[in-house]
Amino acid sequence: MNILVINAGSSSLKFQLYAMQWESVLAKGKVERIGMDSAILTYEPTDMREVREVSEILEHTTAIRKMLKLLLHPEHGVLKDIHEINAVGHRVVHGGESFSGSAIVDDEVKREIRRLFDLAPLHNPAHMLGIQAVEANMPSVPQAVVFDTAFHQTMPPVAYLYPIPMVLYKKHQIRRYGFHGTSHAYVSERAAAILGRPLEDLKIVTCHIGNGASCTAVMNGKSMDTSMGMTPLEGLMMGTRSGDIDPAIVPYAMDKEELTLGEVSSMLNKHSGLTAISQLGSDMREITEAMEAGDRSARLAFEMYEYRLRKYIGAYAAAMNGMDAIVFTAGVGENSAVLRAAVCRNLSFFGVELDEEANSRRESGERVITRNSSRVQVLVIPTNEELVIARETHQLILNQNNVV
Amino acid sequence: MNILVINAGSSSLKFQLYAMQWESVLAKGKVERIGMDSAILTYEPTDMREVREVSEILEHTTAIRKMLKLLLHPEHGVLKDIHEINAVGHRVVHGGESFSGSAIVDDEVKREIRRLFDLAPLHNPAHMLGIQAVEANMPSVPQAVVFDTAFHQTMPPVAYLYPIPMVLYKKHQIRRYGFHGTSHAYVSERAAAILGRPLEDLKIVTCHIGNGASCTAVMNGKSMDTSMGMTPLEGLMMGTRSGDIDPAIVPYAMDKEELTLGEVSSMLNKHSGLTAISQLGSDMREITEAMEAGDRSARLAFEMYEYRLRKYIGAYAAAMNGMDAIVFTAGVGENSAVLRAAVCRNLSFFGVELDEEANSRRESGERVITRNSSRVQVLVIPTNEELVIARETHQLILNQNNVV
Repeated sequence: MNILVINAGSSSLKFQLYAMQWESVLAKGKVERIGMDSAILTYEPTDMREVREVSEILEHTTAIRKMLKLLLHPEHGVLKDIHEINAVGHRVVHGGESFSGSAIVDDEVKREIRRLFDLAPLHNPAHMLGIQAVEANMPSVPQAVVFDTAFHQTMPPVAYLYPIPMVLYKKHQIRRYGFHGTSHAYVSERAAAILGRPLEDLKIVTCHIGNGASCTAVMNGKSMDTSMGMTPLEGLMMGTRSGDIDPAIVPYAMDKEELTLGEVSSMLNKHSGLTAISQLGSDMREITEAMEAGDRSARLAFEMYEYRLRKYIGAYAAAMNGMDAIVFTAGVGENSAVLRAAVCRNLSFFGVELDEEANSRRESGERVITRNSSRVQVLVIPTNEELVIARETHQLILNQNNVV
Repeated sequence: MNILVINAGSSSLKFQLYAMQWESVLAKGKVERIGMDSAILTYEPTDMREVREVSEILEHTTAIRKMLKLLLHPEHGVLKDIHEINAVGHRVVHGGESFSGSAIVDDEVKREIRRLFDLAPLHNPAHMLGIQAVEANMPSVPQAVVFDTAFHQTMPPVAYLYPIPMVLYKKHQIRRYGFHGTSHAYVSERAAAILGRPLEDLKIVTCHIGNGASCTAVMNGKSMDTSMGMTPLEGLMMGTRSGDIDPAIVPYAMDKEELTLGEVSSMLNKHSGLTAISQLGSDMREITEAMEAGDRSARLAFEMYEYRLRKYIGAYAAAMNGMDAIVFTAGVGENSAVLRAAVCRNLSFFGVELDEEANSRRESGERVITRNSSRVQVLVIPTNEELVIARETHQLILNQNNVV
């Protein structure tokens, strides 16, 4: 069975085609600058030459059509017939309280995703465009949706409710949802497998540290708390997002700087975090290099980032009253040995004994970076959200076929 | 030397008169409902009968005059002559970045306190009224100011800066200040004395849990981080304040509920926290009783309160990479054995071994509530902010006299 995984943004679309028998990628690629006359389609068939096309792509439907054309291309293609795509799995950021797992797309599911536009105005409408674009091009193929929030639906009320008037939860669904769920779920499972212990017995803090970043307390295999909240703004300091601040700063800054609601949101989401402090942008590699070259703003940005991450790890050890493992994943988590070292060196009280050599080794696979004697094991596990989406979609299709 | 300690609010004024030789309280009391024709003055001379007067008190100057009249009263008084008051010490909430310690009041100090009205609009103007009311009644007595923020001025930039555009710090002084400083300083010093160890060698998390609540990481005797921020809204869940929430909730709620800046601030400061969740008000004793009688909202409020406090303790253990002691103080911290037990039972991973019997004993003094074998000692220490203000004022006056 072949599954096409789609991650649709408002002006972009990423795809990966999986052969599920071997969980291997047949081809992947992306379309950027959708809506412009110079959109860019990049297509990478496995073990073949990459194809790059610049053309007018005004809609997601056109993007999907061009992608399918390449997948079926006589020279560059990896499929003979469009019906070799057995299902499509979409990443959807917000599943609200309706979805604690993945779902086959039907009218009811689409209605729910639309109902959640308000909570994820930047993401869910774009995902819906992706779903509709697939429908338009491949009307008979089954589609599934895999939510960033679903894994966190196991959080207890004590973690997901905010201490604010209950009417805001009941009327406007203001609560903690959490994001990066597929990643936190995937790496916590992998950690248990690598440690050779049942996931049900483990207390793990998973740190998904990319441009967006979140931490999750995974207790006995379930998300019991996570640092992102109603939106992806809360929690850790990120590339361009502030993470936690005194909520009183929002009205204060609006008043002092005469900002609108949109402007203050934009400031906290796009012009804060590493970018605001380093004055060098949000790239952790560049910041680390500048810091090592003596740049003081870069050092401050790095130290705040590390400090705020470390505090969350400590908080979740207290939340679970224990911590067997810490997992680092995503762009920064997988690649920044300097960040991992700074965090781990300052957690010796918790029983973390970093293996400095294992941490700094240039390696890209799954690995343990603590000594054998370390009471808390620290792992680096490359995340693979596309594979999780493919697997979830595969499973849903199998279940559906069994039922019919 | 006798020192009068004043804590002036916008419509209230509390006072305590200390004889510094024995650090004993000669009299204390308060004036409530200043600005109304039925203001209430309560006066408690030590070892004598309490006096209560209801009368029109429209201004702080009148409140001070009536207080002095009672302190000098032939029957109820504790002083023969107004000149037996050698100095007055005021509590001032916000000292901004100008004050890392207490100060003798002069024109420059008054200018600074006024400059900070913007950062503490509810508090600093009221404190200024108190200072002026003393000047009007006792023009020759020296006055000192003791700031809630001063103890926290040792925080490093990594803890006091927010990851938001630096212009907000440089132009509007938006940073973490922290509050309850006199209390955190006092109980951390007492903890070291009780444990018989030098404060300079200890890592202590002090939990000032009253109607307002904050935690501080006190490392080697210095505040290195604290949960309240630019304002007292940030951090722990409190009686009526939310503490930490996703900052995106502020613009979202303003939009959905059509709230003004003032209304959203009022909602988060006055109608959130325990009050919002318990639906029973903010009194921890009532909430605990209702919870024990089976009230589910009360239980949820208690559990969220405890959970959020526990996470901060874990975060600060990570911030300091260690924790020798936890101190509970202020109304709830000193009196709620149920809260302390819930926190401590869930921190066994950190090395906390609660002595359940010591914790639940009805006692009001300083005490250790962990077993001897506990790696982290937990103490209950009644706070005494008035005594700290009296001592600081005393010291400033002695230094001034030595210099002259």
